[in-house]
Amino acid sequence: MTAEPQVHPRRRGRPGYDLESLLLVAVELFNERGYDGTSMEDLSRKLGITKSAIYHHVSSKEELLRLAVDRALDGLFGIVAEAEAVPGPAVERLEYLVRGSVGVLVDRLPFVTLLLRVRGNTKVERAALTRRREFDRIVADLVAQAEQDGDIRPDVDPAVTSRLLFGMVNSLIEWYRPRRSAGTDIADAVVKIAFDGIRVRAP
Amino acid sequence: MTAEPQVHPRRRGRPGYDLESLLLVAVELFNERGYDGTSMEDLSRKLGITKSAIYHHVSSKEELLRLAVDRALDGLFGIVAEAEAVPGPAVERLEYLVRGSVGVLVDRLPFVTLLLRVRGNTKVERAALTRRREFDRIVADLVAQAEQDGDIRPDVDPAVTSRLLFGMVNSLIEWYRPRRSAGTDIADAVVKIAFDGIRVRAP
Repeated sequence: MTAEPQVHPRRRGRPGYDLESLLLVAVELFNERGYDGTSMEDLSRKLGITKSAIYHHVSSKEELLRLAVDRALDGLFGIVAEAEAVPGPAVERLEYLVRGSVGVLVDRLPFVTLLLRVRGNTKVERAALTRRREFDRIVADLVAQAEQDGDIRPDVDPAVTSRLLFGMVNSLIEWYRPRRSAGTDIADAVVKIAFDGIRVRAP
Repeated sequence: MTAEPQVHPRRRGRPGYDLESLLLVAVELFNERGYDGTSMEDLSRKLGITKSAIYHHVSSKEELLRLAVDRALDGLFGIVAEAEAVPGPAVERLEYLVRGSVGVLVDRLPFVTLLLRVRGNTKVERAALTRRREFDRIVADLVAQAEQDGDIRPDVDPAVTSRLLFGMVNSLIEWYRPRRSAGTDIADAVVKIAFDGIRVRAP
């Protein structure tokens, strides 16, 4: 997991944006008004720079979207790669994947928020949905494997289990606020509740 | 929990809509394009009737929104009232509330989907958000009470526990498809996983 991207609103002493800070503002605007509902005109007004200054960095609104959703997806697939290297039974890799995914959500909150709202109206959105489905398939396969190992409860369909598991993880975009609690505390809470439930076990 | 609202696209033998079927089409359109992105013109085109035929049933687009989100909220608060009458410790009322909420989501899926996407730009939306917060407070209080009773794990902040619990429940709007599995099976799965976790307990 990487730290949040750094913002450099002023470069070489003059007002302006580098690609990174431009991207952050664009993502905020997309999340606020919807991608379809945001024009390059809106973005230029919000940034206080001309549209041609934006086109100096990116070729189109869709390129901003691609950069943003890839930031989220690259984070999640980075965790997939790390999880695959975790030794031991599948349930250990699943726990690593859940914990790491919460970390990516917390570190890249606006990017993951945008990703989870993508509907598939453009080529970039459809490509993002394809990668999301690939991620979901990896989770579902791990759950199914862990169930075969006898580590995950067999009385719920593994497809439903993996949906509920990531339903819990993804809900963070709706309510998690970085200032209130540390990302690692939230990751611990999700792992505890998802794997062992909210009920106190009888001694 | 009530059955899905009935659709009567033809009344007295002539093509037309009653309020109920008009509402269902409006909600589908709001969910597809966003409430802000849908005009009465769009709705009239989708229904194949004039705008004045729509205004025969409702005074405004906002009234359609109010009827729709109230359908969801009334369902959820109906479950709250039922849960309050459940005898025994708070954890039993919490379980009733979770199971019943899944039932409402499944029965009133398009209405709850719309409710969960409301952002608060209009008076109706702000009123809906106020009722949602009231519902969330009731859940959080039940979790806190059950924790005091020693029935819910004390090692996670009750506010976080209740967010994760309903994060799981609310995720149904993203992936649940009525044809694939029965609502009661899904409610059972949610209660099992939320209360006892996905991991098999050591004997």
